Amino acid sequence: MGPHPAVAAIRLAVRRVLHDLLTEHSDTPADTPPERPLPPLVLVACSGGADSMALASALAFEAPKLGIRAGGITVDHGLQPGSDLRAEEVVLRLRELGLDPVESTAVTVGREGGPEAAARDARYAALDAAAQRHGALAVLLGHTRDDQAETVLLGLARGSGIRSLSGMAAVSGADGRYRRPFLGLDRQTARRACMVQSLPVWDDPHNADPAYTRSRLRHEGLPALEKALGKGVVEALARTAQLSRDDADALDAWASQAETSVRDATGLLECAKLYALPPAVRRRILRRAAIEAGAPAGSLFARHIEEVDRLITGWRGQGAINLPGKVVAQRQGGRLVIRQG
Amino acid sequence: MGPHPAVAAIRLAVRRVLHDLLTEHSDTPADTPPERPLPPLVLVACSGGADSMALASALAFEAPKLGIRAGGITVDHGLQPGSDLRAEEVVLRLRELGLDPVESTAVTVGREGGPEAAARDARYAALDAAAQRHGALAVLLGHTRDDQAETVLLGLARGSGIRSLSGMAAVSGADGRYRRPFLGLDRQTARRACMVQSLPVWDDPHNADPAYTRSRLRHEGLPALEKALGKGVVEALARTAQLSRDDADALDAWASQAETSVRDATGLLECAKLYALPPAVRRRILRRAAIEAGAPAGSLFARHIEEVDRLITGWRGQGAINLPGKVVAQRQGGRLVIRQG
Repeated sequence: MGPHPAVAAIRLAVRRVLHDLLTEHSDTPADTPPERPLPPLVLVACSGGADSMALASALAFEAPKLGIRAGGITVDHGLQPGSDLRAEEVVLRLRELGLDPVESTAVTVGREGGPEAAARDARYAALDAAAQRHGALAVLLGHTRDDQAETVLLGLARGSGIRSLSGMAAVSGADGRYRRPFLGLDRQTARRACMVQSLPVWDDPHNADPAYTRSRLRHEGLPALEKALGKGVVEALARTAQLSRDDADALDAWASQAETSVRDATGLLECAKLYALPPAVRRRILRRAAIEAGAPAGSLFARHIEEVDRLITGWRGQGAINLPGKVVAQRQGGRLVIRQG
Repeated sequence: MGPHPAVAAIRLAVRRVLHDLLTEHSDTPADTPPERPLPPLVLVACSGGADSMALASALAFEAPKLGIRAGGITVDHGLQPGSDLRAEEVVLRLRELGLDPVESTAVTVGREGGPEAAARDARYAALDAAAQRHGALAVLLGHTRDDQAETVLLGLARGSGIRSLSGMAAVSGADGRYRRPFLGLDRQTARRACMVQSLPVWDDPHNADPAYTRSRLRHEGLPALEKALGKGVVEALARTAQLSRDDADALDAWASQAETSVRDATGLLECAKLYALPPAVRRRILRRAAIEAGAPAGSLFARHIEEVDRLITGWRGQGAINLPGKVVAQRQGGRLVIRQG
């Protein structure tokens, strides 16, 4: 008798990612001494919640069969009393699964960009450091298809275009360090896999706290949307993420290529050449030029770029346009000049 | 004292569209007899609801000032008892606004594609016929930013990519016949404009009937999403529509251009050349080829195209792939053959 279908599903998802990792690293020249190099290491980032506990259990099962060491790391965000004890408990759980090395790392969460963004930044900095310290091939993250759907809706609420609809990538970070094996699996499967394996899981109270946008989305927004649009919404959102990502990548590539051809000998953007491009490509070039000139990407909205675009498409002698980061865009003699003022 | 801000807003929106229409048609050679041609005619499609009544009132006010005749048409879908009387009432209201010609046209709603799609198909067929019969420059439609937001969410639920996120176009139909002046205005503004002008409006019971997806979305889905994500959601969705439309147009243009370069002398698709394209462009070419071979666009899903794509990107000798409409895709000697089997 094989494992429970939920357990089979989480293991298959992890096995695929480990295979990918081995394939990618198969022709990396070994710079370890020939005596007896340690087998490659893959870490799992684990909060103790159902998704990442399921991920840890699947990694513990699959890694040894492929000659990979499985390790784990848990981040203590220090946001709740007793979070250090919780982190120690997660460490114990991961050791019980047979992971080695396992460590807990404490971070200080700042305030920049709101509580969720600040916690995320601190977490990834800690995970990056741990991965480097241990020389890990990769860090696995437990984000599921449901998390992906929520991320797409959060991006939609920004209204800033298809890049923000593309959710989380299956592979991200420096050298593709972060892998998300569960992006195609639903949360329910992860939870069930924990249950049938008798793994205790911890429900982060933040996940149910209506002070957090994501939590409101999870417990009210998405269920209401499913009620109106049908049960396939989560899957549709996840598919939208993938399609949007590919589309955004292609358009970025086009913009990169087109950018060189619309600059004159002195490097200035030529309005006539910009005009001939499709709006989607032209606006990407303008956005890029504004960021290059010093406008902070996070403060540069679609309406800013539209206004700069009107210097090209609706020229009637308008003056300089002020952009975030004290960047100024103006049209001068058929050229677009974007620079810090 | 000027008009109420809501009335000013609806009039400005209509004035802009009428200006566009006059500009577009300014160099059309007059094929009417020189004696005394009738001024150009613009129709409004009016259900008697707040959005289209507001639109009709703004058209009645603005058109004469630009030398345009304003007419109206209401479609009797015959879906509720007494709908013919309602249509006659709308005709009276439009005449009271000074529109001329005004007519009611009865349609028979079929069943294809569900009740909403069938009603829409019948409605546009009737509007097309009326526009041609009267030689109208354009037919104005009362869709608001809120309708646009709903349309984006309906597209999102299909999960079929950015084209389905691009909502309704400001200009659509044969020769750009349909114009949507209110896509940037919210429903509340239209309703208020009716109120301050003492225009009686009719609330279509279908709009509140939870049997209709759009109605569930309007009364439950979107409000819940706003509660979770904040009040800016409708605006963000409408902006997403515009950005997605531009992106989808650009990628379609790229795919059209690339398609000619990936065909061999006999017109077959060359796998090696397809492989070199970005996935977003390659999949558009594959989708187009499948539709050209006879696959019905509405039944061709992302997963079908992904499977065909694997003949290019994950070739391991797999067999022919069956697509909707009895279309078969297979790889033969480095070429992709897609034809009706």
